[in-house]
Amino acid sequence: MIYLDNSATTRPFDEVIALVADMQQNNFGNPSSLHHAGVVAERAMKEARERAMSAFDADGGTFVFTAGGTEANNLAILGTMLGRVHRKPQIITSKIEHPSVMETVLYLKSLGADCRFAEIDKDGMIDTEHFKSLLTEETALVSIMTVNNEIGSVQDIGALAALTKAKNPSALFHTDAVQALGKVPLSMRQSKIDMISVSGHKINGPKGTGGLMIRKGVHVKPILYGGGQENGLRSGTQNTPAIAGFGLAVAMTQAQIKENAERMNHLRKMLSEGLASISGCRVIGTQKPAPHIVCATFPGIRSETLLHALEAKEVYVSSGSACSSNKPQLSPTLLALGCDRKEIDSAIRFSLGVQTTEADILAALEIVKEQVDFLKNF
Amino acid sequence: MIYLDNSATTRPFDEVIALVADMQQNNFGNPSSLHHAGVVAERAMKEARERAMSAFDADGGTFVFTAGGTEANNLAILGTMLGRVHRKPQIITSKIEHPSVMETVLYLKSLGADCRFAEIDKDGMIDTEHFKSLLTEETALVSIMTVNNEIGSVQDIGALAALTKAKNPSALFHTDAVQALGKVPLSMRQSKIDMISVSGHKINGPKGTGGLMIRKGVHVKPILYGGGQENGLRSGTQNTPAIAGFGLAVAMTQAQIKENAERMNHLRKMLSEGLASISGCRVIGTQKPAPHIVCATFPGIRSETLLHALEAKEVYVSSGSACSSNKPQLSPTLLALGCDRKEIDSAIRFSLGVQTTEADILAALEIVKEQVDFLKNF
Repeated sequence: MIYLDNSATTRPFDEVIALVADMQQNNFGNPSSLHHAGVVAERAMKEARERAMSAFDADGGTFVFTAGGTEANNLAILGTMLGRVHRKPQIITSKIEHPSVMETVLYLKSLGADCRFAEIDKDGMIDTEHFKSLLTEETALVSIMTVNNEIGSVQDIGALAALTKAKNPSALFHTDAVQALGKVPLSMRQSKIDMISVSGHKINGPKGTGGLMIRKGVHVKPILYGGGQENGLRSGTQNTPAIAGFGLAVAMTQAQIKENAERMNHLRKMLSEGLASISGCRVIGTQKPAPHIVCATFPGIRSETLLHALEAKEVYVSSGSACSSNKPQLSPTLLALGCDRKEIDSAIRFSLGVQTTEADILAALEIVKEQVDFLKNF
Repeated sequence: MIYLDNSATTRPFDEVIALVADMQQNNFGNPSSLHHAGVVAERAMKEARERAMSAFDADGGTFVFTAGGTEANNLAILGTMLGRVHRKPQIITSKIEHPSVMETVLYLKSLGADCRFAEIDKDGMIDTEHFKSLLTEETALVSIMTVNNEIGSVQDIGALAALTKAKNPSALFHTDAVQALGKVPLSMRQSKIDMISVSGHKINGPKGTGGLMIRKGVHVKPILYGGGQENGLRSGTQNTPAIAGFGLAVAMTQAQIKENAERMNHLRKMLSEGLASISGCRVIGTQKPAPHIVCATFPGIRSETLLHALEAKEVYVSSGSACSSNKPQLSPTLLALGCDRKEIDSAIRFSLGVQTTEADILAALEIVKEQVDFLKNF
């Protein structure tokens, strides 16, 4: 199997799988329990939280564990804006956000919020002039993803946060960093970002994990009500085995972030150049690419046809993203990039992970070439 | 270790731990992915869903996987009422609900909903006359737990649902069955219950699992926005390894529900009688007890003192419930039961699980007696 769908999900590290199993077996207590079984579970969670927080170079603040990136994005956006939606808050996001940001913002729009959508340029980058034209002294929240999940463009998120705060120092700046964690470093200390969402299963951690890093002093309200876990921000018994596994995955990934990024970048270039040399393939590039995502289009061959042809050879890729469940729709990202319908219908996302090897890329390129040749003449 | 805190959380079955690890290793795909890795993950999830649904004797309908009981309760209550909160819906719950119901209802109350709280009698049962007096033709939602998590009283939930529908056939009836699953059978076919919340980690399944069973035709709106997974009702990549583990735990538990309940009932009686014979102990009983919960009070000895004394002997119990994280407060359940402050301050919950043995109970009784004698004379 050549798994090139790591932006959809990754295989957990063996060490993570072992830790989750060990916690379930030997450290299964409820961290809210006052006895020893609770205390040791709480201790494991504390270590995981420190590991998570260290990934954001944070100066204080809180990391709230959630069930994943979607819940973290909902918490960031609804947790800051739902309570003041009657005051019609001004919210800015981009046209290429993940559905867990876009749909959440659209929900607030349906309740009366003033929602604005920044354009992107042909390179997949936020159009800074357009972004600036949307900012006002009334802007309440900006939410822009760090790395786009379909084409891999990396926004200059620090600059966008600085622009936001320059216009309105009390505006909040959130970034969905689900595709950035472990690949593109983020620093709260050196930026004006207020909230960062991440997910465990994109970095070889367990599914059902992730969270929201919140800068000290930023006021977020819960979106789930109950026992008041996570300092009142996220009720529900904490999933300590998976949280410990998440913490380990963050630590393992962050310890190698530079080496991993270099290796993936090398493989990405190899893949991108190899694809570009295939007749009938156009790589949808970007000047500031993340190390792990290559989007390519094969006009005349429908994405799903190529996806299944590759699947038959055990090469796993994605048509657009797997983020939208069973909703066949034109990718808003590729539309915003100016791709035409034929290109969008033929787009394939290849996404690398830390487990991807050079042999995987070479074999995948052979198979893609062979299948494209076959399907073109079909 | 004698673990008598199974209502806080349970140790997962070895088979569940093995399945979760195997899924993480060998079936880690995103179920929304179109390729083989996605398809096999989707298939495992489908089996888990069928296993979950079979626990409710449901005639159609949907089981929505959530990250646990708290999210399921929030989905049931907010997902049906938040969208119509401006119409001031009439909501009835009881005074002894879990915080994930109580706090959610109080949130709706803060938004203007007409929320009513049914009294309970000295036996921990809903006061039916009072409940009937709260019902009107305008009642929109009733949410009553099946088994109380602190004293184990089992409500006649079918009768309460029938009363509700007799008054207003279009009212929705929800029950938090987190403490009932695997112990007290529930049938949607033979009752008028519309929604049932459950949690995996209370039945030796993985933490971070659970869900909401929704009767066919009942309209629930999502509380998390995004990719539209779970038929639009719960966005976010499904946690397939844990979901499969949850399905297995449900299947294993339901297959033995009668035998388990009989065995736990036997042990519960042994524990209850043993405690009652200890000088200075009063068992807070109920005429309709669940098979796994015994609440007892030791006036003059603070709960936490006894809890830690027992902990030193590796007997793990709970002071009240572990559901409220770090919020020392008088138990609303025991207050509603009419206990005085001294009794509440001295209450201990013992909760059995399917792994509890007779030897555990006999040893625990010895240790409780010894520690109570010691602390009384301290």
